[in-house]
Amino acid sequence: MTIGLLKKKIYYHDTDCGGVVYYANYLKHLEEGRTEFCLENGINTQEYARQGVWFVVANIEVTYRAPARYGETVTVETRVEKVGRTSIVFKQRILREAKLLLESTVVWVCVNTEFKPRSVPEEFSRLVSAA
Amino acid sequence: MTIGLLKKKIYYHDTDCGGVVYYANYLKHLEEGRTEFCLENGINTQEYARQGVWFVVANIEVTYRAPARYGETVTVETRVEKVGRTSIVFKQRILREAKLLLESTVVWVCVNTEFKPRSVPEEFSRLVSAA
Amino acid sequence: MTIGLLKKKIYYHDTDCGGVVYYANYLKHLEEGRTEFCLENGINTQEYARQGVWFVVANIEVTYRAPARYGETVTVETRVEKVGRTSIVFKQRILREAKLLLESTVVWVCVNTEFKPRSVPEEFSRLVSAA
Amino acid sequence: MTIGLLKKKIYYHDTDCGGVVYYANYLKHLEEGRTEFCLENGINTQEYARQGVWFVVANIEVTYRAPARYGETVTVETRVEKVGRTSIVFKQRILREAKLLLESTVVWVCVNTEFKPRSVPEEFSRLVSAA
Repeated sequence: MTIGLLKKKIYYHDTDCGGVVYYANYLKHLEEGRTEFCLENGINTQEYARQGVWFVVANIEVTYRAPARYGETVTVETRVEKVGRTSIVFKQRILREAKLLLESTVVWVCVNTEFKPRSVPEEFSRLVSAA
Repeated sequence: MTIGLLKKKIYYHDTDCGGVVYYANYLKHLEEGRTEFCLENGINTQEYARQGVWFVVANIEVTYRAPARYGETVTVETRVEKVGRTSIVFKQRILREAKLLLESTVVWVCVNTEFKPRSVPEEFSRLVSAA
Repeated sequence: MTIGLLKKKIYYHDTDCGGVVYYANYLKHLEEGRTEFCLENGINTQEYARQGVWFVVANIEVTYRAPARYGETVTVETRVEKVGRTSIVFKQRILREAKLLLESTVVWVCVNTEFKPRSVPEEFSRLVSAA
Repeated sequence: MTIGLLKKKIYYHDTDCGGVVYYANYLKHLEEGRTEFCLENGINTQEYARQGVWFVVANIEVTYRAPARYGETVTVETRVEKVGRTSIVFKQRILREAKLLLESTVVWVCVNTEFKPRSVPEEFSRLVSAA
């Protein structure tokens, strides 16, 4: 699979008093999307963590296009654009049916237990989407 | 000091689309109140954690009397009702000026690194409020 | 259905640096459990909210028995013990397979848009579990 | 004042089981930094909201340079780079003493109650930092 699709329902704890999802809470949905996408492709980052190979978010860019509201179900779409020597670039979107709500680029850096960059394990290359 | 007073301002991230503070988020304020109360009395739970002495919440009871809203400043009031052999009973309230918003009883159990109950260090007895 | 069962997977955003789920975050899972239990029984609290009938948490009591950790899947079990004139009493538990992690009693009060108690709509009586 | 400085202490609820602050939680600190910076400059966004003038985050970019941990106190530094016709560009940093932890660019768009862009009120121009 080269695109991950995760359904998420919006609950009260996702929203704020502006009536829509709080801007930081979408980052939780994006985390879940990346985790599930890796697992669906047979890559268990928790297992790597036990071996001292960590993936940390080094950079995130989010463009908010339209809000999600309480009770709606959204889809978190996840793909990998590029696997570099020490980093992985994810492209993610959140949609409500065909409506685009949010676009994001997230960069993971692979680090050791002293937070020093190290090479990304070979098997991650299988995550990259065909063009 | 036998009563801790912590001022907290309510921001968007505290609220939900009902227009008021989300019920679970008050528990973050209560955590901060307990931590600061201990520190003000010279007790550093983080230092204990480094020595393998942990304090975990075993029970919480909260009565919600009135809501807090975005932009308000509330006071978290913390005192200790009782220090038992392996537990500590906190009484906490959140107020907006004289108005009572919330009352809570929280029980900490003192555990070792295998989560087994152990005796509360002697110095905690100084936290107990005079009647 | 008289017992609601909701599966939840634990992600990084649920945990804290103690290595386990943060005590307030279980209250989000409990919220989701109550909402889904009502929906499965044909009761849409969002629809009631649009008509000015709100359900607010007046009291919660939680006993924490064992921690949940990152990557685990837990089950939120929800039933209604009692429907009173203006309130509803939920009994909830969170389990990891057969292991009980948490027990909770939550009281909802039914209020109008001025936060004054009002009678619980008749159809909620169908939520009560048979003994 | 052309730079806002907000002190924040890191509590358990800010962290995750990786032992450091969860990546989305810094966005709460950044929200607080922007709000306080505006207030210190005599601009009350809550008052504008009551008049139907909303400020929504349209874009955020965050570079994470080093982690913050439980018990540390960090400083959220906020300044405004530019006030456009319908948008405001914030530059924010989070530091622990002299150590840079995080850099961020946040774009607010000024909208009416139908979420349509509208002109930024004149007084916001006073927020822009001198070069």
